[in-house]
Amino acid sequence: MISKNQIKAVKALHRKKERDEQKTFLAEGVKAVVELLNSENANVKELFAVADFMREYADLLRKKKIPIYEVSEGELAQISTQKAPNRVLALVEFFAPSSADYSFQNNFSFFLDDIRDPGNLGTIIRLADWYGIPKIFCSHQTVDLYNPKVIQSTMGAFLRVEVAYRNLQELISVNNIKSVYGAVLNGKNIYTESLSPGLIVIGNESLGISQDNLSLVNKPITIPANSKNGTESLNAAIATAIICSEFFRNLSVR
Amino acid sequence: MISKNQIKAVKALHRKKERDEQKTFLAEGVKAVVELLNSENANVKELFAVADFMREYADLLRKKKIPIYEVSEGELAQISTQKAPNRVLALVEFFAPSSADYSFQNNFSFFLDDIRDPGNLGTIIRLADWYGIPKIFCSHQTVDLYNPKVIQSTMGAFLRVEVAYRNLQELISVNNIKSVYGAVLNGKNIYTESLSPGLIVIGNESLGISQDNLSLVNKPITIPANSKNGTESLNAAIATAIICSEFFRNLSVR
Repeated sequence: MISKNQIKAVKALHRKKERDEQKTFLAEGVKAVVELLNSENANVKELFAVADFMREYADLLRKKKIPIYEVSEGELAQISTQKAPNRVLALVEFFAPSSADYSFQNNFSFFLDDIRDPGNLGTIIRLADWYGIPKIFCSHQTVDLYNPKVIQSTMGAFLRVEVAYRNLQELISVNNIKSVYGAVLNGKNIYTESLSPGLIVIGNESLGISQDNLSLVNKPITIPANSKNGTESLNAAIATAIICSEFFRNLSVR
Repeated sequence: MISKNQIKAVKALHRKKERDEQKTFLAEGVKAVVELLNSENANVKELFAVADFMREYADLLRKKKIPIYEVSEGELAQISTQKAPNRVLALVEFFAPSSADYSFQNNFSFFLDDIRDPGNLGTIIRLADWYGIPKIFCSHQTVDLYNPKVIQSTMGAFLRVEVAYRNLQELISVNNIKSVYGAVLNGKNIYTESLSPGLIVIGNESLGISQDNLSLVNKPITIPANSKNGTESLNAAIATAIICSEFFRNLSVR
């Protein structure tokens, strides 16, 4: 059983403003929540779960000194952001990377310039995790990492990939980045261009890279279209994946 | 102004059963609808639009001998499947490719084995359009092409890429396909394996390729992970894109 006030408090976290104020986000579903409970880096503050989750993970839950509430499927549906909630919902503290940290490991990463679709951001985080990219960057207008749909579509990868909201110009100058690639429609062919480590700027879903940031790109690149039918674009996450794969295939083939 | 009965009739098409019975689907948004109106292959049966769309496309609409209704933003919202409807909604006849047609052009295509997420199917259709793949195949359990979210996420590519729901075994035997690739977790490295034209089987988002279909795969392939953190998977559309790019890079580089 949960009270009306608890329902209200959890539902408040569906909104970015409340999440930012409380530095707390929602994680849902067995896989993500169990990973969070097992992670040393994550601070789960409160948990709502149905009876069979409580039974299955009794040992894990016993170790945690946090409020844990058993709820019915109906109650879970009331506080969930999902159409088909998956047994458990957790309140989790923001990871809070230092906003002064501009460090750029491995000399290879993405900069997402106003990506707005939560599924695209989540999918790109999952992609970064697959290719072992420890940190990616976003413009300040990019969708919120803690948006429940972003968290959901990372499939747990938000635990392993740091997402930092930064200004592109500062990022480049602080790290003295030499190669700033940009995904555009009239750049060099990614399949024939020699690609060295650097930062890859990916533009907004409909507007592409902003004018200001485009002027910072010194290596414009393009995925060549094979279509003769006037196709206009690829989905932003798909384009990111194809470009990322081209950079990493060299590592793999070597 | 539209009547209650019209609202009811359009909303019925939000459901697959009704779409199948009436062989009619909904297309929304200026870009998709204008492309449909201009396409020789599409049969737009009825149209609902706000006043400024009517003005902007008056010449195009005048040529069409179909019922066209001016609606308010509020009325459009009532019949739309979208949170933020974009000025116009059209009722469109199914493209109805022959169910007996197993033809397999260019000797390169995908077979989607129970892809369930509408965004994934739509994004893959858009990908196929970019790379000039004229036809893709889906298992019968794959999400409906005419699902409004699929149509939306193709960004108009559904007009140029044929989507055929077929049985994999028949598809292979009718076309005598020699190379049946399958995206799995323990196959050959796509970056080092020599890839020749063929059919690429992509599995369901959580279950992968079904046992029956896996037995038809003779070239299992894998996108090598660079992560040491126990990442489990890539999004299905992302994996499709990376594999597709690897096949096409050879064409492009040649």
